[in-house]
Amino acid sequence: MFSKILIANRGEIALRIIRTCKRLGIHSVAVYSEADDTALFVRQADEAYCIGKPPVNQSYLNAEEIIRVAIESGAEAIHPGYGLLSENADFAKKCINAGLIFIGPPPEIISTMGSKIEARKTMKEAGIPIIEGINTALRKEHEAVLAAREIGYPLMLKASAGGGGIGMQLVASEEELLKAFAGNKKRAEMFFGDGAMFLEKYISEPHHIEVQILADHFGNVIPLWERECSIQRRNQKVVEEAPSPFISEETREKMLNAAVKAAKHIGYTNAGTIEFLVDREQHFYFLEMNTRLQVEHPVTEEITGLDLVEEQLKIAAGERLMLTREAVKKNGHAIEVRIYAEDPKTFFPSPGNITEFQLPQGAGIRNECAIEAGSKVTPFYDPMIGKLIAWGNSREEACSRIKTALEHYNIKGIKTNLSMLIEIVSHEQFLSGYTTTQFVNKYYLNQENKRK
Amino acid sequence: MFSKILIANRGEIALRIIRTCKRLGIHSVAVYSEADDTALFVRQADEAYCIGKPPVNQSYLNAEEIIRVAIESGAEAIHPGYGLLSENADFAKKCINAGLIFIGPPPEIISTMGSKIEARKTMKEAGIPIIEGINTALRKEHEAVLAAREIGYPLMLKASAGGGGIGMQLVASEEELLKAFAGNKKRAEMFFGDGAMFLEKYISEPHHIEVQILADHFGNVIPLWERECSIQRRNQKVVEEAPSPFISEETREKMLNAAVKAAKHIGYTNAGTIEFLVDREQHFYFLEMNTRLQVEHPVTEEITGLDLVEEQLKIAAGERLMLTREAVKKNGHAIEVRIYAEDPKTFFPSPGNITEFQLPQGAGIRNECAIEAGSKVTPFYDPMIGKLIAWGNSREEACSRIKTALEHYNIKGIKTNLSMLIEIVSHEQFLSGYTTTQFVNKYYLNQENKRK
Repeated sequence: MFSKILIANRGEIALRIIRTCKRLGIHSVAVYSEADDTALFVRQADEAYCIGKPPVNQSYLNAEEIIRVAIESGAEAIHPGYGLLSENADFAKKCINAGLIFIGPPPEIISTMGSKIEARKTMKEAGIPIIEGINTALRKEHEAVLAAREIGYPLMLKASAGGGGIGMQLVASEEELLKAFAGNKKRAEMFFGDGAMFLEKYISEPHHIEVQILADHFGNVIPLWERECSIQRRNQKVVEEAPSPFISEETREKMLNAAVKAAKHIGYTNAGTIEFLVDREQHFYFLEMNTRLQVEHPVTEEITGLDLVEEQLKIAAGERLMLTREAVKKNGHAIEVRIYAEDPKTFFPSPGNITEFQLPQGAGIRNECAIEAGSKVTPFYDPMIGKLIAWGNSREEACSRIKTALEHYNIKGIKTNLSMLIEIVSHEQFLSGYTTTQFVNKYYLNQENKRK
Repeated sequence: MFSKILIANRGEIALRIIRTCKRLGIHSVAVYSEADDTALFVRQADEAYCIGKPPVNQSYLNAEEIIRVAIESGAEAIHPGYGLLSENADFAKKCINAGLIFIGPPPEIISTMGSKIEARKTMKEAGIPIIEGINTALRKEHEAVLAAREIGYPLMLKASAGGGGIGMQLVASEEELLKAFAGNKKRAEMFFGDGAMFLEKYISEPHHIEVQILADHFGNVIPLWERECSIQRRNQKVVEEAPSPFISEETREKMLNAAVKAAKHIGYTNAGTIEFLVDREQHFYFLEMNTRLQVEHPVTEEITGLDLVEEQLKIAAGERLMLTREAVKKNGHAIEVRIYAEDPKTFFPSPGNITEFQLPQGAGIRNECAIEAGSKVTPFYDPMIGKLIAWGNSREEACSRIKTALEHYNIKGIKTNLSMLIEIVSHEQFLSGYTTTQFVNKYYLNQENKRK
């Protein structure tokens, strides 16, 4: 096992990785920007080095500087967390070339799965169901129009290199496609440096359900059940749970098998997630693969009792998976909510100074939070300031625990989405298990509109 | 189920009961002393009423006032928590006479088990092994001397009505017994209003292991595994865990059966704990029964996934136990530490104002804490300000998680035992499973003495 690793990330995920390192006796090295110099993760790491100024391209995305700190501090491996450099194949390659272990899959796999068009092709080869659509890059409007006529409307226009909902739009007609194409292509070029677009048939009110897998360097792949992450705002997850309240045992079994098959087909290693869209009839379709730890991984940890960061470290260190698929039982139900420093009505970020801060406590409550009283939430980073996870014997118990905990959460000084989260987890539709990607639009925003 | 209950307690246990009430949609009524008027539990209860001044006999022990508030607020039942009035048979009787449900066993059982001499007799009748000793009240020195000659030294002199280590002393000879008798009798009279003493054979380096049981009003009794609570300072538990790292599966099975037999023999109802001393050869002997929820109940909750307060409420409301012994699986390992506002070297209370306060976070970490930044720890109550519980797949994982969490615990403004707790949970003897009641003397205090 490693004796020292560098964490190329910030906030709650850096803290979470540090905790597992401490527990395993691994020294942790943090890197941080000037804007984070008093952050909790900087203080809790065994060593911490400032690598530049905000915004991210001058610090957290500075691969050379991060690798230099790793080598000089004597770290043997780099954990990229999620976001930032975590799905950057070039960074992974640079780590390896510098003699460091990148805690994640090989760069070629990151690269393939990072292109949604390539990923679709690869999954089709593997025999995984994909959404009807095209598997070539569209760069011109007329190409898109012709392709769309073949598939039929409504459909989703997507950026091949996209993520976080950027460069993605529902189009219901040729007219709408023509209106949408140039703008989304431009955004994709701006955000991802690649304007390649593609089209997928639109599935109405789908569930977003994903399968967590672990894969070692000896060809062993095991699924750690699924997560339901359908509740989203602006195409970003806000409430996640495990297991899914929607799918049948039969569908679950099929999805888990498909995820294992997909990972084996590409020779995947380390922790990864295969995301699926699931329609009303429980047909599921490959959506994308995330080749890193996910924000919502704690719900899987809560129902399996595993520490996914520990598993990642072991796999990266060359250990053989000691787990078997049969040995990973799912126990109870877990729900995670993402706490954002944002206006709960407009979803605009709300930076500022935290004047009061109190975490909820008690049975089944897990906190993963990056801030404290006195913290400054800057405008430079993702506005997610923490996560709250509740476990219960049943979904009902997990729901009531997370609601009580949210009501006891105390953050003063900035706007947060706590009120929105309370509304969601108390909503009768949510409690009854209605969890499609349309939830926020249908039950939260509409209600807001009515109020105005 | 109840719609409103009163909580006749304070601090962390009041908060813990409030949380379960909120989750179940039961209104909670807090009562508090003037010294607690800004306390967290007072703010988090649905209703709160001041019932007098500190110390406890002018407020938290004022049965009449508490019952009056219960009736006037429309509460249907009273949860006594632990300590204070929780094992006061008169209070239970008064509740019942006032038409309220006392959330605990019938007053007669509290009474019988409250007298250690009566409890010994009853358990002997039930066929439960008791420590060799006498079952009659000793009120005179010469009675004690004669009895001691029959049992043989060393032996434990104990107060029949005792608790918390008060009125209890190890005596190695007739000379020591003569020296100790009058003082302990006096303390017993002062603290418990009853100077009756008795003697038990001394067991050297025993383990304190207890079995949690649940019993409904239909004759169903189930054990919820055991807790090992051997690590004590001044005869008070500081570190507890479940399951015990010491006993074999065979001993476990026998102890669980004995606990069920004991509870059935006395017609016990609600949650209760049968405490045993276990010697090196794994012989176990009845020590006492606690007829209430215990401080360390969360370790049982962590390994079983149950909410013991919920079970108590259901039983008190007349519901039948839906659980079976076979259905209550033990999953992983849990450790609890008690956080005291005290000098870690002298164990003297350290009241004061909390200037900084931060809870540890992350996977497997449960907080049950009564204070916050700005809280005042007064000298009027037990100095325990909170509990930290860690769960892990293995004892090793639970130990490392609790250690990391303790290192991240931040309390400024008062002295606490955090440093002592870190020393205990990192000690190689503790890690190797040595957990007898002599641990603190042997490995903590001796070390302290060496340092001086």
